[in-house]
Amino acid sequence: MQRIRTIEVRSHIGERVRVAGWLHSLRQMGGINFLVIRDGWGTLQAVAETEAEIVLLLESGAGVESVLAVEGDAVSMPQAPGGVELHNLSIEIITPVSEAPVVPLNKPKLTANITTLLDHAVVTNRHPARRAILRLSAGAMAAFRTVLTAKDFTEIQTPKIVAAATESGATVFKLDYFGRPGYLAQSPQFYKQIMVGVFERVFEVGPVFRAEPHDTTRHVNEYVSLDAEFGFIENHFTVMALLRDVIAGILTAFSEQYAAELQLLHVEMPGVPTEIPHIHFAEAQELIYRRHGVDVRGEPDLSPQDERWLGEWAQQEFGSDFLFVTGFPMRKRPFYTHPDPARPEFSNSFDLLFRGTELVTGGQRLHRYADYLAALEKAHLPVEPFETYLEAFRYGMPPHGGFAIGLERLLMQLTGVPNIRLATTFPRDLARLTP
Amino acid sequence: MQRIRTIEVRSHIGERVRVAGWLHSLRQMGGINFLVIRDGWGTLQAVAETEAEIVLLLESGAGVESVLAVEGDAVSMPQAPGGVELHNLSIEIITPVSEAPVVPLNKPKLTANITTLLDHAVVTNRHPARRAILRLSAGAMAAFRTVLTAKDFTEIQTPKIVAAATESGATVFKLDYFGRPGYLAQSPQFYKQIMVGVFERVFEVGPVFRAEPHDTTRHVNEYVSLDAEFGFIENHFTVMALLRDVIAGILTAFSEQYAAELQLLHVEMPGVPTEIPHIHFAEAQELIYRRHGVDVRGEPDLSPQDERWLGEWAQQEFGSDFLFVTGFPMRKRPFYTHPDPARPEFSNSFDLLFRGTELVTGGQRLHRYADYLAALEKAHLPVEPFETYLEAFRYGMPPHGGFAIGLERLLMQLTGVPNIRLATTFPRDLARLTP
Repeated sequence: MQRIRTIEVRSHIGERVRVAGWLHSLRQMGGINFLVIRDGWGTLQAVAETEAEIVLLLESGAGVESVLAVEGDAVSMPQAPGGVELHNLSIEIITPVSEAPVVPLNKPKLTANITTLLDHAVVTNRHPARRAILRLSAGAMAAFRTVLTAKDFTEIQTPKIVAAATESGATVFKLDYFGRPGYLAQSPQFYKQIMVGVFERVFEVGPVFRAEPHDTTRHVNEYVSLDAEFGFIENHFTVMALLRDVIAGILTAFSEQYAAELQLLHVEMPGVPTEIPHIHFAEAQELIYRRHGVDVRGEPDLSPQDERWLGEWAQQEFGSDFLFVTGFPMRKRPFYTHPDPARPEFSNSFDLLFRGTELVTGGQRLHRYADYLAALEKAHLPVEPFETYLEAFRYGMPPHGGFAIGLERLLMQLTGVPNIRLATTFPRDLARLTP
Repeated sequence: MQRIRTIEVRSHIGERVRVAGWLHSLRQMGGINFLVIRDGWGTLQAVAETEAEIVLLLESGAGVESVLAVEGDAVSMPQAPGGVELHNLSIEIITPVSEAPVVPLNKPKLTANITTLLDHAVVTNRHPARRAILRLSAGAMAAFRTVLTAKDFTEIQTPKIVAAATESGATVFKLDYFGRPGYLAQSPQFYKQIMVGVFERVFEVGPVFRAEPHDTTRHVNEYVSLDAEFGFIENHFTVMALLRDVIAGILTAFSEQYAAELQLLHVEMPGVPTEIPHIHFAEAQELIYRRHGVDVRGEPDLSPQDERWLGEWAQQEFGSDFLFVTGFPMRKRPFYTHPDPARPEFSNSFDLLFRGTELVTGGQRLHRYADYLAALEKAHLPVEPFETYLEAFRYGMPPHGGFAIGLERLLMQLTGVPNIRLATTFPRDLARLTP
């Protein structure tokens, strides 16, 4: 008999069906054995009213996480999870497991501490709540690509081993590249800009590597970056409009295709306004002074507290979970940032705040060769390591800009998991290089 | 006026339109100036019958690769490329470029030698022929995901920095991970198997890193791997059936969505049989002996010459560009390979040959914990570096298998470019770490 998935059983009421998966739980109540079978998509209850039906399990000592195929009659049962269960079971043991996992996978909540959870991520990722967040991760990547492909963006894959540390300041992983020093790319920034010269509109989904020795709940040292970059923009507002559509596309995909995951994770879904409200950096500092009496005017950046205050204001003023802060001071932005032509001490850049925390950074980049030479000089950076990058601008680039969304940070902020490590399959941090 | 893309102009005949892009070429014939504008998607001819129309270009000295916006009347012109051209031009110079690129981009063929092409890939990737192959690369990734998503596979992203060199034999890049040794992943093999325990059916598109010091036209040291892995298979034939559908899906997407690119690259598209013919490794060696008198029986692997002979045979016998060779000897396959239960010296693995060259490798993996312990012992490998990997098998794994398609190799073999470096955006090889 052809095996069907657990989530398909509800459309086979009255039929005999075959499912396969892991023995998620097994308990006895009043002489009846309740099995829960977990496959790659969901779980299904199977009820053995006679001992004969589970005699193979009993005799072999196969316990939870054993891989089984189960045939049974699909019976409508409103009080069962999913409204359906299997009766009159016939069980085949595919891979018996006698030892239970270190962390129980069949409790609604994973109760172990985070170190144990991550040490055993190979198995704890099987827990429905862990699966839900990893499934959302897949959904976010797919939606990101769908929105941009519909807008005629081309997908690129750029090198992760690079010849020089790219952006000043940040720390990079160094490796031995056939006897020469090589570095892991901190971001596809330079390559995606270069590729605007080829395809005009590009995106990339790929790993980035940050050797910053931060040990916080918001940092990992390898993560997935959703990058977009495109040409012929007016200024950073063109980029913000695209980002709005990307965020809306991801959230819509979640609501439409991942309702079960959102429910399991108790996610309170935000709405995305047609136009996300925005405030200039300097006005934001004035606002904080007026509303909270704290004078942050002249500070070169926003503090986490500033961001929280601005998030509250956006909620009160516009009923919006999202807020763009534009025009960050040039001195805190990377050398390729485009200045505001009217107020050159401010930049044509933005942060997108979500519920009072920075979610995405982006902006307009310089596009004239001479501007790059001047910017490097101003930043006291040598030209030589940037020569191939500069070749793009030497031979003609349009006004362009883009943004990068940290996939794990997006999931963390949306789902409210307390640690970014729980928004990734197998995190890499200061202390963790395995599993 | 809203700018439209060059490829959209043909549906605006009789209207005034605005395009934007790079000045691909500019030539004078009989007092008339012919401009070709290249944007991210195509090219368009614009004809200036008066000098006044191009006076800005002449005065500023802006030449090829300058970024322009051009307004003009869209006129049907059967002899023009694309059947349409612009008249009565009004030109705006967005970014003037006075210096021509090292390699001319407006000849039908890129004439420079490969070193020059790659040294200046930042600009040479703008050439329509280079763009075409990179666009196919995007198309292959998208089609790979589309086929697998439709079959309920979940996308994963697994770590690229790992604690131990994974597969024995191959060479890995070593890096300093906060004072400890780290390595770049040669393949997501272990992680994708682990994730079969989570989602049953998984795929990943991402970079892999090989430190093998090969300087050939078929090797690069960083490439994009299209990986799939799934559980509850019968044996390697289940995997081959999936691979057949993936290859067919990619080729269908090419034919349907990338006709212009295929034409430009003179690609002779293969058909994919509903069932790709297959031959067992031992029979293949017998066949070679019978047909060519060369006795390769007992050799542990196929030579390139063997593969060419088998490719010819598949073409003659089945009219097929594709051929599966199954059952490679266990001693040449990695330790996690599942043996053929009937003939344990042979494996449940396969190579897919395309026109006589290996394109994809895959197979069934071991799934029982005890089998892994035995396989590691037989391969004289210690258990300790594999402990987290083995945790997946300790807690129940179904029969499973998968394959990995090298994206650049697929494009190289399909398009016939003479060097794999030309099938990638910015190649990494023994000598090349830039651009």
